[in-house]
Amino acid sequence: MSGLFITLEGPEGAGKSTNRDYLAERLRAQGIDVLLTREPGGTPLAERIRELLLTPSDDEDMAADTELLLVFAARAQHLARVIRPALARGSVVLCDRFTDATYAYQGGGRGLSTARIAALEDFVQGALRPDLTLIFDLPIEVGLARAAARGRLDRFEQEGREFFDAVRGTYLRRAAEQPQRYRILNAAQSLSQVQHALDTLLPELLELHRG
Amino acid sequence: MSGLFITLEGPEGAGKSTNRDYLAERLRAQGIDVLLTREPGGTPLAERIRELLLTPSDDEDMAADTELLLVFAARAQHLARVIRPALARGSVVLCDRFTDATYAYQGGGRGLSTARIAALEDFVQGALRPDLTLIFDLPIEVGLARAAARGRLDRFEQEGREFFDAVRGTYLRRAAEQPQRYRILNAAQSLSQVQHALDTLLPELLELHRG
Repeated sequence: MSGLFITLEGPEGAGKSTNRDYLAERLRAQGIDVLLTREPGGTPLAERIRELLLTPSDDEDMAADTELLLVFAARAQHLARVIRPALARGSVVLCDRFTDATYAYQGGGRGLSTARIAALEDFVQGALRPDLTLIFDLPIEVGLARAAARGRLDRFEQEGREFFDAVRGTYLRRAAEQPQRYRILNAAQSLSQVQHALDTLLPELLELHRG
Repeated sequence: MSGLFITLEGPEGAGKSTNRDYLAERLRAQGIDVLLTREPGGTPLAERIRELLLTPSDDEDMAADTELLLVFAARAQHLARVIRPALARGSVVLCDRFTDATYAYQGGGRGLSTARIAALEDFVQGALRPDLTLIFDLPIEVGLARAAARGRLDRFEQEGREFFDAVRGTYLRRAAEQPQRYRILNAAQSLSQVQHALDTLLPELLELHRG
């Protein structure tokens, strides 16, 4: 049995964590070993890099290249210590955000060139790409309101409307370009509706995992 | 007047800091603006990345790619916020370690491929290279003894003889391949002898800075 690498993408407030847990439960009910993880982070060292990425600084702007290299440094550690070993064991890996988020936030949001991101993606991941990516899509206003309701904003959540518009646009464009790898879920629906959509995806996931 | 980018390389205990200060003093006596800095680090954020790089961890080995990407993340920040602005102002930048150290420690020491390091060097630096690199060369035993005398060893200083042998070999090989960019100083000599060697280099530095 092969491992299966599934990533969940979308803005804060789109319900990725809740739905990741739900999907894990459904897969485990089938006797499948599931690993839940997230980016940036996923190992103690990668979580320390995450702290650097998310903590707002009053005295020093982070250069765009610095941000990009930190994201991939955390990813290299996460891949080496967590994701690749789990896939080698045959587990299903459910990862909250991965390289699509880099294209969306650092590429779309910050305006870094897609070619520079792709160069680091190849450098760090080699040929590894997610088998399937679930995009929890949400109108920008809804996402911003949900994130604000959670309290103090991190360095990304402090960005403005234009930034999140570019993030969302990047996700949707990537999904349109490679429909076989992406599934778009309407995260503005009620939780039970989203979970119903996940239920209908389940046979396909099981098939991929058996494959 | 153009800026001048001079890097100082060599193991701990080779006297890089002392000699960097000495050289700065001699240049300032000529009315030249000198910026002293170091890697990894050189900005508050880059120093936080340095902490991640140097702190030994009991529970999680740092993957080689992670280390390499963290080094270049710190470098991207240092270049954007400190080195490039200083060179643009026409200053002489004296930097304790730079990318030659990456070739020596991550390449020679850890065995990462030169091609992978060169790819990130181009990615982060574009065409920027030091104008001159001073290598403070020291027999391995002498360097290890001096570092040990300073107290607690960091993550690199804990490495063994073979590691430092490869580090030294990489520095000397790079200097041999590009003699116009490198000057090798025998750091096993007395301090006054090393400083005499720096004095004889001074006219060349002034000429480069005027150029």
